[in-house]
Amino acid sequence: MEKLVITIAHTGNVPTKELNPHTPVTIDEIVEDIKKCRELGAAVAHIHVRDENEKPTSKRELFEEVLRKLDEENVDIIRQVSTGARGGENTLEWRGQMLDIPGAEMASLSTGSSNFPTSVNANSPDLIKALATKMYDNNLKPEVEAFDVGMIDNAKRFIKKGILKAPVHFNLVMNVPGSIAGTPKNLLHMVESLPAGSTFSVSGIGRCQVDMIAMAIMLGGHVRTGLEDVIKYDKDTLASNSMLVERVVRIAKEFGREIATPEEARVILGMK
Amino acid sequence: MEKLVITIAHTGNVPTKELNPHTPVTIDEIVEDIKKCRELGAAVAHIHVRDENEKPTSKRELFEEVLRKLDEENVDIIRQVSTGARGGENTLEWRGQMLDIPGAEMASLSTGSSNFPTSVNANSPDLIKALATKMYDNNLKPEVEAFDVGMIDNAKRFIKKGILKAPVHFNLVMNVPGSIAGTPKNLLHMVESLPAGSTFSVSGIGRCQVDMIAMAIMLGGHVRTGLEDVIKYDKDTLASNSMLVERVVRIAKEFGREIATPEEARVILGMK
Repeated sequence: MEKLVITIAHTGNVPTKELNPHTPVTIDEIVEDIKKCRELGAAVAHIHVRDENEKPTSKRELFEEVLRKLDEENVDIIRQVSTGARGGENTLEWRGQMLDIPGAEMASLSTGSSNFPTSVNANSPDLIKALATKMYDNNLKPEVEAFDVGMIDNAKRFIKKGILKAPVHFNLVMNVPGSIAGTPKNLLHMVESLPAGSTFSVSGIGRCQVDMIAMAIMLGGHVRTGLEDVIKYDKDTLASNSMLVERVVRIAKEFGREIATPEEARVILGMK
Repeated sequence: MEKLVITIAHTGNVPTKELNPHTPVTIDEIVEDIKKCRELGAAVAHIHVRDENEKPTSKRELFEEVLRKLDEENVDIIRQVSTGARGGENTLEWRGQMLDIPGAEMASLSTGSSNFPTSVNANSPDLIKALATKMYDNNLKPEVEAFDVGMIDNAKRFIKKGILKAPVHFNLVMNVPGSIAGTPKNLLHMVESLPAGSTFSVSGIGRCQVDMIAMAIMLGGHVRTGLEDVIKYDKDTLASNSMLVERVVRIAKEFGREIATPEEARVILGMK
């Protein structure tokens, strides 16, 4: 089986210092956490940034600063920028403003709409098309964030229309309250629904985290982890990004899957 | 196997006289079509109304008029009002204004968000809760419109929270461009995901119509048909609501499933 690509989703939209003091929210904290996670085995950084009030934002300057500092500190990790910050305007200009920053290599792209716990994860067909176009125009590899089966079916429709280019890389986001539940059966159905030749990783939100890690490893997929997906390590312990990456590496070892370097990950994900 | 409950979705949001001249859009046309479909075997009318420009609307007065005329003409069919008119405001006051009309028996309730071909099918958690509450307060049986697996998982979450009351009746909406594809495998997965004790019908949008009718009949489910779901009868022929109901009745006969009367349907759907 191919080596395992680990993505670190270090910050996301929801965690705060109050919910979990290990959450990296400043530029320096974010860069520091990515660096640590790279040393532990992560090959991809799924980058979210926060404003001065810890609120999620799509602000270009903040992404730019993270990427610049990663370069300065020679952190060799795939830079995947997120277009999914909650709370801003639902336009290409806001959601896609970081897509032409030099050094970005991948970007997240939701190919449909679903619910978050208290809001709508709204991605209109026009917005999806505009974001995908800007990604390809800037040589970014999209990572399709599929919160449900229909988003995979939509990706197939977008491939047919030439809006997405096969082979597509997916991240299957399991167990967001408001979207598909994180059960092995649901994950299996999603994996079996992928277009031929796809690569995929799995994000297990909350309590399904370890089940989804194990399933992804078994099925030949890859793994995303981090405080964006899970705030607690177990019932009693708050997680840190390092602890979460270390757990994935240990589980992978039990299954006999080796960990991919960023350079190997670029080949596995069809970026080279 | 239980008798088959046929729902006629006579008008919906999309069809127009221009797309298909058989589309009923005035109150009189709608009532006439429902009456014909009842005679052919439909037990439930999934009611949408249109304004004077043929545009979908949630206007209470129009629903009231349809229900009043159905009474006047003694049409014995289950009155299911739709809360899913597109284009209006996304509030309880607009989307749910028809829920306390005397004579309404069921109402449609989407339990999540997805995409339509050119827009977002936005149903926030708060709106879903408010609509469900108003339905139960008025003794309406909700029909959960599931456009994807996550909407079933959400229904389970709502049951747990007491917002929905089990057993729930679902309509599995297959093949809306922007949501889950209408394949037998996807439908099977959705049916297997339903909470125990649920009843369900299936809407096959567009070209998957006959596949989904056959699958629903085989799996012990029920069938929704009508111009809301399918504008063409086959490659070359425009459909009418009557033709679509007649086809369901013929296919059911081949499988040996009898057709339920509205009175039988009320028992099957747990309304009595």
